[in-house]
Amino acid sequence: MMETIREIARKAKEAASVLAGLSSEAKNRFLLHLAEKLLERKQEILEANALDLERGKASGMKQALLDRLALNEKRIEAMASGLRDIAALPDPVGEVIDGARRPNGLLVTRVRVPLGVVAIVYEARPNVTIDSVGLCLKAGNAVVLRGSSSALSSNRALVKIVHEVLRRCDIPEDCVGLIESESHEDVKVLLALREYIDVAIPRGGADLIRTVIENSRVPVIETGVGNCHVYVDDAADLDMAERIVINAKTQRPSVCNACETLLVHRSIAPVFLPRIVRALQEKGVEVRGCEETQRIVPGVVPATEEDWYTEYLDLIIAVRVVGSLDEAIRHINTYGSHHSDAIVTLNYAHALEFLNRVDSAAVFVNASTRFTDGGEFGMGAEIGISTQKLHARGPMGLRELTTWKFVVYGSGQIRE
Amino acid sequence: MMETIREIARKAKEAASVLAGLSSEAKNRFLLHLAEKLLERKQEILEANALDLERGKASGMKQALLDRLALNEKRIEAMASGLRDIAALPDPVGEVIDGARRPNGLLVTRVRVPLGVVAIVYEARPNVTIDSVGLCLKAGNAVVLRGSSSALSSNRALVKIVHEVLRRCDIPEDCVGLIESESHEDVKVLLALREYIDVAIPRGGADLIRTVIENSRVPVIETGVGNCHVYVDDAADLDMAERIVINAKTQRPSVCNACETLLVHRSIAPVFLPRIVRALQEKGVEVRGCEETQRIVPGVVPATEEDWYTEYLDLIIAVRVVGSLDEAIRHINTYGSHHSDAIVTLNYAHALEFLNRVDSAAVFVNASTRFTDGGEFGMGAEIGISTQKLHARGPMGLRELTTWKFVVYGSGQIRE
Repeated sequence: MMETIREIARKAKEAASVLAGLSSEAKNRFLLHLAEKLLERKQEILEANALDLERGKASGMKQALLDRLALNEKRIEAMASGLRDIAALPDPVGEVIDGARRPNGLLVTRVRVPLGVVAIVYEARPNVTIDSVGLCLKAGNAVVLRGSSSALSSNRALVKIVHEVLRRCDIPEDCVGLIESESHEDVKVLLALREYIDVAIPRGGADLIRTVIENSRVPVIETGVGNCHVYVDDAADLDMAERIVINAKTQRPSVCNACETLLVHRSIAPVFLPRIVRALQEKGVEVRGCEETQRIVPGVVPATEEDWYTEYLDLIIAVRVVGSLDEAIRHINTYGSHHSDAIVTLNYAHALEFLNRVDSAAVFVNASTRFTDGGEFGMGAEIGISTQKLHARGPMGLRELTTWKFVVYGSGQIRE
Repeated sequence: MMETIREIARKAKEAASVLAGLSSEAKNRFLLHLAEKLLERKQEILEANALDLERGKASGMKQALLDRLALNEKRIEAMASGLRDIAALPDPVGEVIDGARRPNGLLVTRVRVPLGVVAIVYEARPNVTIDSVGLCLKAGNAVVLRGSSSALSSNRALVKIVHEVLRRCDIPEDCVGLIESESHEDVKVLLALREYIDVAIPRGGADLIRTVIENSRVPVIETGVGNCHVYVDDAADLDMAERIVINAKTQRPSVCNACETLLVHRSIAPVFLPRIVRALQEKGVEVRGCEETQRIVPGVVPATEEDWYTEYLDLIIAVRVVGSLDEAIRHINTYGSHHSDAIVTLNYAHALEFLNRVDSAAVFVNASTRFTDGGEFGMGAEIGISTQKLHARGPMGLRELTTWKFVVYGSGQIRE
């Protein structure tokens, strides 16, 4: 298997150089053609997926995981429409980012180019397969996919179609490699291949991300973990605060930009807490409060230190009363995951201080944390939300799947 | 020691939040003041450096290393003038990179902010201490320095002055931490501190860089290794080619953007090779040639496969005859270090193909590879030349020591 992985990565690297030179038109033709083929061959995909589901059920896979693994007509249509959306986005490759003629006459330009080969390590969601292929190829990158073995049959069927469409579009098949792996060791093998893999992106839960970071010798872009906060300031409009908290917590609790902890300024806590706890509980949310919250709203579940660190991804919220804006900011920077955090306030100075001091990928005034998203930010489709500071921070779109090179035009210049 | 390292890093993280909010004026005041103090306290620095040099000589350190370790009046003046140059550069922090009002009224902006805490791992060059402090602090970052134990006395003296100037400028001393380490284990401890260190930058030779990459759990920016090529095309102006090859190889052979391998198109080899080999040898360069080169210019040292991979950093050059532009490009992409590579040609199509297909941080037509440099490219001072594709590629200036955050201004928006 080790040699197979090496070979897949080596071939991807070779194919990447062809891909880097493809026109936007050729890449878009491939994306649209693939969208069409996925719809045409729905039946084949669903049959392959049924095998994975059967195996999953037989091995006692949890219902939540089975739900993620399951494909249906609607999900396949969503994959196809995702590909059409990617085709419609502008091609980032070839952009001249900046440039200048130097005093010695050299024309120095910085040009956007593909990263090369992107390794995607993900879990049992087959739609990530198509989504990753679409985004990586549009940005001119080859991609090596390492999905969960529980989705292997689905991924094989999807990649088979991808390969056929690549061939028909005269693009080297090796641009898309699938590691048909059963073992975790294989992830380590893949992520040690510095000569072939330019960047690794884990797409999944906290455990997967940690495994990738700890084992990778290739550069990693960390995505995903979102322990997000809403801080309701003493100068907040409480109606607005309620709308934002309810939206951030309940509109889609399973995603990374959902709110996990609510911070409330002490001076408004007696008024706001009873009201927001009731509203949350009406939406089925379990409220876990600090001691002060428990005193103001008897009956809430006591929160422990652990709760402040937790990304529930569920209808649970931790609530803490804070004495000042400063305390709120320190709480967020200490316990948060530097993803998305919001303040609700009508006070200008408080808003600016929060925006400046909260060390997160996205900081909001008077808006729901749920807006941290490539689409909502106007970048189009995203491959993930980076919570690290290197290369890309926040939603990562096509531009974040590229790098640059310096292209220098001379007329015989030498350095004195 | 482990606890000390952790404590230094933790304090740096805390100090970083103060630094992030400093005005450009305050940062520049610090830089100019530090420049002044270095000159004032030359004697103290030189005495500390003399201790390192004595220890080095006693332990049998090689002359080349002693040269790097040695400070003198001129080198201290260069440090000071480097700081003044950094003070004169525009502050990258606070730049609004882009932004737009979304259809729902949200104003989404992307704002340049410091990385946070930068760990610099380097060798026995004390000037890197001051240079790193200047660049990191100007970009709003705290810095944790881990220099070689052989320069410890010099680094202590320099950091002592840095701390005094920080205090006088009302900037937290903890912004600059020095790991007074003797052991390699300590590098591992430092580079595991993901909660405090945002990025690690190795500054030194290939071994150091490899150690950092293999041991780091924090994101690393790989810098430095330069196996650079000049390809002399069949359509080259041979006078220009000679000037460029001689400059790229001999103007300063010890640096990463010096040329290490010369590739010559077969059709001009009989004319160009005798001439360029003679010119190189006159400059004291040892020429190692492929079999064809040996036939054309009898007496050159035979090159082995290993030579194509080697960064000599010395007056040695490997020479290979290639049959085509394609072969030259493949050689560079296979054996090179993706740093800086040049083609000499008068043919427009050849120039474009080389620029497009060579996968390096900087690609040149008709100019010396020696121009890959922050100053030469108009970026001002640089902290290194990145040969990786993530975050920064090529010379890294102040902008590359920053990241961004999304700052979003709402008026109560929630996601539907």
